[in-house]
Amino acid sequence: MPKIWSESIKTHRQAVRDAALDTAAALVGERGLTGVTMSHIAERAGISRATLYKYFSDVEAILIAWHQRQITRHLNLLTAAKDRATDPLGRLTAVLETYALISHEHHGTALAASLHRGEHVQHAKEHLQGFVETLIADGAGSGDLREDVPPAELATFCLHALTAADGMKSKAAVRRLVQVTLSGLRRHP
Amino acid sequence: MPKIWSESIKTHRQAVRDAALDTAAALVGERGLTGVTMSHIAERAGISRATLYKYFSDVEAILIAWHQRQITRHLNLLTAAKDRATDPLGRLTAVLETYALISHEHHGTALAASLHRGEHVQHAKEHLQGFVETLIADGAGSGDLREDVPPAELATFCLHALTAADGMKSKAAVRRLVQVTLSGLRRHP
Repeated sequence: MPKIWSESIKTHRQAVRDAALDTAAALVGERGLTGVTMSHIAERAGISRATLYKYFSDVEAILIAWHQRQITRHLNLLTAAKDRATDPLGRLTAVLETYALISHEHHGTALAASLHRGEHVQHAKEHLQGFVETLIADGAGSGDLREDVPPAELATFCLHALTAADGMKSKAAVRRLVQVTLSGLRRHP
Repeated sequence: MPKIWSESIKTHRQAVRDAALDTAAALVGERGLTGVTMSHIAERAGISRATLYKYFSDVEAILIAWHQRQITRHLNLLTAAKDRATDPLGRLTAVLETYALISHEHHGTALAASLHRGEHVQHAKEHLQGFVETLIADGAGSGDLREDVPPAELATFCLHALTAADGMKSKAAVRRLVQVTLSGLRRHP
């Protein structure tokens, strides 16, 4: 098979897959977790049920794949936020603010709560914990952050504190939450 | 019925009820949430199944009653902690430390996770939020705590941050978590 043709098949498959994920997430948003079937998804995505079943075994598999894609996108946003700042405290602030805004915008739904109990989330959590821990260790090294508490404990503190963003009433409140969390991390005289 | 006799019945009923709750919690600890039946509980508690069914309709009802009793005991511990200190910051510190140690000791189990999704928890959460919010407002009034963020948001921050106690490796780590959380609340120059 010529390379251009195999690339085109790959692109097509990715497009079908993405359409299935987007459609499933939209339908669950409209009808709730238990109100969506493979037929609904196939019909709304404009593909046959047979095609959909070639990609996914059931609705749960689609939702987990959708969630994995969300997690990847969110981790990419966090990496991009880190790369926009140049000093350790700036990087940590950008990452925590991005994380808090993601929690604020995307969570608090029954779908999120259900997906977050899944095993596929554990790996992402560990990655995130390590990512924040490294930023905190850099901030301690540069003298901005406290050194009396291990970076791993401070990272755990941050990630738990920022889950409060979920129930905050405005983006301004989310930004205040990030500032309060950062004051917990700072070196104080 | 003479008062002394009705008091004795009341005490007896409370004792049977407490025995059922303690036994159910112990059995779930040993066998897991799904491994416990009404017969197991009755047998271990030394009462008949018929008697047990007079008090509770099923295992879930017993576990919810047990959890409600735990919540009441924990709220009493928090009130007692508050009453032991005399100044606003001391009261807040005592309450947050007690809360974090309770989270550290009693949570992280499948039973806790399952019960915490129950509706009966909502009321306790609101009570706790209000309780901590009042202590924070007192601390802001006395000049110890920051005034640039509303006490309600700071209370939400605290209670989320302290859920990290759940996974901390030692009581010393829990106490550091409380200190880090408190630095987030303090007025800094």
